[in-house]
Amino acid sequence: MKKPLIKALILMLFISILFIAVPSSCLFAQTPKKNVIFMVMDGTNSDIVTLARWYKGSSLELDGILTGGVRTYSRQSAITDSAAGGTAMATGFKTDADYIGMVPDGKGSKPAVSLLEASRIRGYSTGIVSTSPVQHATPAAFSAHVKNRDEFSDIAEQQVYQGIDVVLGGGLSWLHDGGDERLTNDDGMLKTKESARKDNENLLRILEEKEYHFLEGKSDMRERSDGKLWGSFADEDMAYDFDRAQLLPEQPSLAEMTGTAIERLNQSEEGFFLFVEGSKVDWAAHKNDPVGMISEVLAFDKAVGVAVDFAKRDGNTMVIAVTDHGNSGLTIGNGTTDKTYYDQPVEAIIRPLKAAKLTVKGASSQLKKDRSNLKDVLASYGLEEHTEKEFCKVENARTITDLEDEMAAMLSKRANLGFTTHGHTGEDVFLYAYGPGKPTGLHENTDLAAAVSDYLGLDLKGLKDLYVDAKEYYESMGYQTNIDLSDKHNPVFIAIKGEEKLEFPENKNVMFRNGVEVALKAVNVYNGDTFFIHVQ
Amino acid sequence: MKKPLIKALILMLFISILFIAVPSSCLFAQTPKKNVIFMVMDGTNSDIVTLARWYKGSSLELDGILTGGVRTYSRQSAITDSAAGGTAMATGFKTDADYIGMVPDGKGSKPAVSLLEASRIRGYSTGIVSTSPVQHATPAAFSAHVKNRDEFSDIAEQQVYQGIDVVLGGGLSWLHDGGDERLTNDDGMLKTKESARKDNENLLRILEEKEYHFLEGKSDMRERSDGKLWGSFADEDMAYDFDRAQLLPEQPSLAEMTGTAIERLNQSEEGFFLFVEGSKVDWAAHKNDPVGMISEVLAFDKAVGVAVDFAKRDGNTMVIAVTDHGNSGLTIGNGTTDKTYYDQPVEAIIRPLKAAKLTVKGASSQLKKDRSNLKDVLASYGLEEHTEKEFCKVENARTITDLEDEMAAMLSKRANLGFTTHGHTGEDVFLYAYGPGKPTGLHENTDLAAAVSDYLGLDLKGLKDLYVDAKEYYESMGYQTNIDLSDKHNPVFIAIKGEEKLEFPENKNVMFRNGVEVALKAVNVYNGDTFFIHVQ
Repeated sequence: MKKPLIKALILMLFISILFIAVPSSCLFAQTPKKNVIFMVMDGTNSDIVTLARWYKGSSLELDGILTGGVRTYSRQSAITDSAAGGTAMATGFKTDADYIGMVPDGKGSKPAVSLLEASRIRGYSTGIVSTSPVQHATPAAFSAHVKNRDEFSDIAEQQVYQGIDVVLGGGLSWLHDGGDERLTNDDGMLKTKESARKDNENLLRILEEKEYHFLEGKSDMRERSDGKLWGSFADEDMAYDFDRAQLLPEQPSLAEMTGTAIERLNQSEEGFFLFVEGSKVDWAAHKNDPVGMISEVLAFDKAVGVAVDFAKRDGNTMVIAVTDHGNSGLTIGNGTTDKTYYDQPVEAIIRPLKAAKLTVKGASSQLKKDRSNLKDVLASYGLEEHTEKEFCKVENARTITDLEDEMAAMLSKRANLGFTTHGHTGEDVFLYAYGPGKPTGLHENTDLAAAVSDYLGLDLKGLKDLYVDAKEYYESMGYQTNIDLSDKHNPVFIAIKGEEKLEFPENKNVMFRNGVEVALKAVNVYNGDTFFIHVQ
Repeated sequence: MKKPLIKALILMLFISILFIAVPSSCLFAQTPKKNVIFMVMDGTNSDIVTLARWYKGSSLELDGILTGGVRTYSRQSAITDSAAGGTAMATGFKTDADYIGMVPDGKGSKPAVSLLEASRIRGYSTGIVSTSPVQHATPAAFSAHVKNRDEFSDIAEQQVYQGIDVVLGGGLSWLHDGGDERLTNDDGMLKTKESARKDNENLLRILEEKEYHFLEGKSDMRERSDGKLWGSFADEDMAYDFDRAQLLPEQPSLAEMTGTAIERLNQSEEGFFLFVEGSKVDWAAHKNDPVGMISEVLAFDKAVGVAVDFAKRDGNTMVIAVTDHGNSGLTIGNGTTDKTYYDQPVEAIIRPLKAAKLTVKGASSQLKKDRSNLKDVLASYGLEEHTEKEFCKVENARTITDLEDEMAAMLSKRANLGFTTHGHTGEDVFLYAYGPGKPTGLHENTDLAAAVSDYLGLDLKGLKDLYVDAKEYYESMGYQTNIDLSDKHNPVFIAIKGEEKLEFPENKNVMFRNGVEVALKAVNVYNGDTFFIHVQ
């Protein structure tokens, strides 16, 4: 045997050993940029997804990525609200109702770092998309820290100072300064007493200073995919997907917003973390409006399609899609099918629903003040045919909400759908996920934060000192401290030692040292009792 | 370089190449025996599983093996009954309500081969375990072929002639011959007009002839783990798990039956197919009795633990656990929590339920004829404390069923649980699976049959000719045929050509050629119109 042959054999042996020792996926390893798209369809029990699939008549995008289930309960309750549910997924901590990015701490509360903050600090680009006001509980939990979800003004201000690269959704009311006019479209879902801002902050001006491209409609959005984007497409919530074409055609869809956000964020060299919420399944569920629920599940599903398509092309993107909790207890089948459930052709359930051209909110929004077009309104919700008794009921509805409730009940009866509540429910929900590191099996909602943190290398737990008790910290350093509440809507934490005066204004990511602005890594959070700040 | 060294290098190279080319699991491949344990908790929406976990206070066995979801609808309806649901999973075909192991065929119906039959034909041992009568829809769908699930007598006879190695459950009434006495415990769930047999068949004698060990109680079962076993532990259904210790302590639990079946079937050299049903979640759900539902989910979960423990030790066992459909629309949360859902401590939901010592059926079974112990009965169901108005309602309940409905509603109100129906519901359900070949993701219920068939190498589709139209077949061979209905409960298919007379008695796996018995590979199925037989 010749030496070259021996050499060749030895070389082949080494290569072979290499193949044994090293998994093939690692052979040509490099550090790719990583992305996570975390998608929540708010308040969606599994029955709604089944119903939406029948309505669509073919498979959902979600169907292809079902991987397990999620336990949704909060620290306080077997049934979570969206604030505690969102905070659990955003921070990895179970918390109490109404808490946004906050956890209980003794008798008080303190901020918990969110995936979005940890991602930003780690160098990822970040984004938030929702069809509710972006200040609403779930997107807020991923981008702000307040003790009560009602504090839309505080949430809005923190979001503007969070350094998020892309924000798309509703909620314009809380960006500009203004009085205390009541909201036009508040059906109890906004959960805020304040309309517009009381603190005289004009956040639109701040966004301009921070060089955001401000987008007001679909066409604006199409023209822009670079720089920092802030799209605010409605004063409050955006239109239901089924209503948009007819009522608010200039608003983009959730899928369009998701696509724009991905396109923009994918310019990042590190990768990105994007949060997307199909917010209004929950709103329609609170109203027990099956048409609204289907509308929003299908709109969410299209957005999931956009995300998964990107993830498939990209190869390094994890997509999570999940609801934060059930709502309404909708079932296919109800008290009238007790004995006849086995003979409910899909057509018999779907046909009544397809007769509706608008959601119940969309339909009722078209009612004239004198109610002269009530029959048209009923027809637009699939109730052209109705008994005298039914018409009597809707005619006598005292408020618009009562009218909507009657209409929704009439349609659900025709479709043989049942409901147990106008509130949330406590069951485990389906988990949908795609891509590297995706969670499978049954999980706590808090585990989802851990899965994202692990995949992006965020060390969410290691960041627990991002927020410290300002008074405790500065007093231990010999400062005298106080909270200046002379402008009660703009509290400022003050620390003074000798010649040095430090001022930390609530909700902003800056402090002032003897009047000179210093940028901070995190926003200043005030829970009404304690200031939390980041010490660089 | 020396020759021995070269030889060593070449040898090492070959070994190395072997490692590259062949997955390590196949390196020392052999053909292991394979087992499948297919477990169904009948009529269990996901909310019930969540509630049962809270009641237990710790993780369920199911929690560890959640892999996806299942679509449950039938051929006819968005909401399936258990017959069509069971048939879909047992045969791989969607079918209509009431059909047991049968599928529509033009204007008529024909048998579809079940996993259990295909397994037996392929040489696997087979078993069936249920807490209902084993003749009830779901176990029946895995072991019989009748056009209507009510035909318990036919189902029982087919099961006795199916050559199943282990049968454990309820249903003694349909094994012995007897008159037409009404059943003692029929609350509408048995769905049969017949009590006991009208055809004068004494199946207990047949079981003896076929050398089954007949088991009547827990102690019998403990003593026996070899030979063919037939345990019939109740005339009709077995006790609810929560009621057993107090009311029927001689009955084994579902977990004990599952353990016995596995132990016995594991003696097979080929492997086995075992079907296990926790039947009575569904029964309790029809009654909207949360205690009964929890009782049966937890009993089922223990049986899943037994199966998964075995599968873990064994390494070649696939376990599937799934419900066939939702039932009752139970939710944690109801109309009274519309606005307070976020503050429902687990304790507040579970404490009222823990006060019940018996299920509603167990409690009502203790009511004296003169109802003098009504308060004790209420107390045993956790209703010791009640308002005067509530007591008035239960006191005035006309029937026992009305009384049970009132009691169940009282308890559910205390626990803040909601229900939409006393019937089934149409949502996708969770899929639990463990072991090699396990299904993951979203599936049609029929896919589960395919997964088992693939894993066991059954070729379920290839067996489609196991049953042929007897008349068509024999007439094409020149026979004259007729169906002898002179004994209407024992129809016989007759084919005559020349001197040869063939007789195929309904439900048995034999024929008679000029009076001489010939064993057949499958039972003779008569759908009231057509005889289906196997032609060897």
